[in-house]
Amino acid sequence: MMQEISRRPIGIFDSGLGGLSAVREIRTLLPRETLVYFGDTGRVPYGTRSTQTIRRYAAQDIRFLLSHADCKAVVVACGTVSANALDVLCAENDIPIIGVIDPAVTAAQHATKNGRIGVIATPSTIASGAYERALHRVDPTISVTSAACALFVPLVENGFVDADDPIPRLTAERYLEPIRASGADTLILGCTHYPLLAPVISRVLPDVTLIDTGREAAHRLHALLTERNLHTASDTPGSSSFFVSDEPQGFANAAARFLGISPEEGLPAVSRINIEEY
Amino acid sequence: MMQEISRRPIGIFDSGLGGLSAVREIRTLLPRETLVYFGDTGRVPYGTRSTQTIRRYAAQDIRFLLSHADCKAVVVACGTVSANALDVLCAENDIPIIGVIDPAVTAAQHATKNGRIGVIATPSTIASGAYERALHRVDPTISVTSAACALFVPLVENGFVDADDPIPRLTAERYLEPIRASGADTLILGCTHYPLLAPVISRVLPDVTLIDTGREAAHRLHALLTERNLHTASDTPGSSSFFVSDEPQGFANAAARFLGISPEEGLPAVSRINIEEY
Repeated sequence: MMQEISRRPIGIFDSGLGGLSAVREIRTLLPRETLVYFGDTGRVPYGTRSTQTIRRYAAQDIRFLLSHADCKAVVVACGTVSANALDVLCAENDIPIIGVIDPAVTAAQHATKNGRIGVIATPSTIASGAYERALHRVDPTISVTSAACALFVPLVENGFVDADDPIPRLTAERYLEPIRASGADTLILGCTHYPLLAPVISRVLPDVTLIDTGREAAHRLHALLTERNLHTASDTPGSSSFFVSDEPQGFANAAARFLGISPEEGLPAVSRINIEEY
Repeated sequence: MMQEISRRPIGIFDSGLGGLSAVREIRTLLPRETLVYFGDTGRVPYGTRSTQTIRRYAAQDIRFLLSHADCKAVVVACGTVSANALDVLCAENDIPIIGVIDPAVTAAQHATKNGRIGVIATPSTIASGAYERALHRVDPTISVTSAACALFVPLVENGFVDADDPIPRLTAERYLEPIRASGADTLILGCTHYPLLAPVISRVLPDVTLIDTGREAAHRLHALLTERNLHTASDTPGSSSFFVSDEPQGFANAAARFLGISPEEGLPAVSRINIEEY
């Protein structure tokens, strides 16, 4: 019975394509697991919606992953859902559900030497104060400096990620000035899009440790599968399948970029679903 | 009966705040008309979404304007919707609906001296080929050079519009290089957000005539009301009301800036609606 459960796939979802940075980390750490990804590209962004709407969308997203793929665990690879709906999702579903905030906060707490941590994220995630609260829960003495980086998601979605490109570099310099001024030695990339800008961010803040929320969530997932004896028994590489709620072609191109798939390997297969039906 | 119809308001909608550039022009040309504006700020941007999604959103937007305000005419102050959904909207609704493409194309045809016209717009508008087709319909000898400027809407929505700011200027230089190389003497700003970047664009292309699609649509609306005897009989200034699908405060500030409303006059009233209900 346990073996049967362990063969079931791992679900990952995000409001769009940012969660692919978590997929990349999970594929590296857990190469034999089967992955099913849903990106709600037809309803992105979530960050400007009410908590009630975010919860309804998140419930549909997870319902799709469970009904379509019968997942053994789900990674909520979305800062907005992690901040606004994780408690409800965990209460309503029997499988383990991992968000991006707590793993990143634990990693940042371990990484900082001077007790000053920066957080960058979308305006809505920063406004929610979720990272700040979580950091102060693990250590009330940590000094937190937050910065909302509204242009970072459009830059990533449109491929402006080269560290030698002055457009993302100047944008990063402007947004990261309060982080630099705070003297933070550790910076949480509080949006799953941001790891693609890590080379740019490191150019601006060369001595700061960057915390990749997708990577930390992948490590938490690995630990959880070990704890509960849920690692797949398969000894061949696991497949990844991708579902979106809008046009699949653009997503396939972005997925290839996120996952480091070369043109020779071909684009990943992406299917469109009607998420309103779930 | 005709008088009753003429007293009904004019509806204007856009994916966000760009359509306010059309509102400004309509208020100047038709100061006694009552205006109702919807900005779909909770689902902006439209320009990177699929045609199917754009059509679904546009149908909801116009349904709101007709059911809430019983408009006598609607201006689709959005290049993306005009390019991808105008035919469907016109087929499904009985009132006159004015898009931004045809008026701008006529203006560009009159403005060009060398027969070379540039078009900049969102990726989906450029991909639709709508401006190019419309230009070639009026004159097959016109040489058209198009450029998709994916970052322009996020730049405008986040206030990066200063001609002295290197971030919008470098972005404009990169996107506009094919236009410059083509020798076009006229450039259609094929997205209603772009007039806010006109100072930046003029810095990059100093000798090029810029065609403001919102302004041209306002002139077309004026002509249509005259033709059909639909001008309001009111002799007092018409009111403007604003509806959005996201937080109203930021929009009210932007609207004041767009419409040239001074702080003494106070911010315009902006109401939030749930567009998913329409």
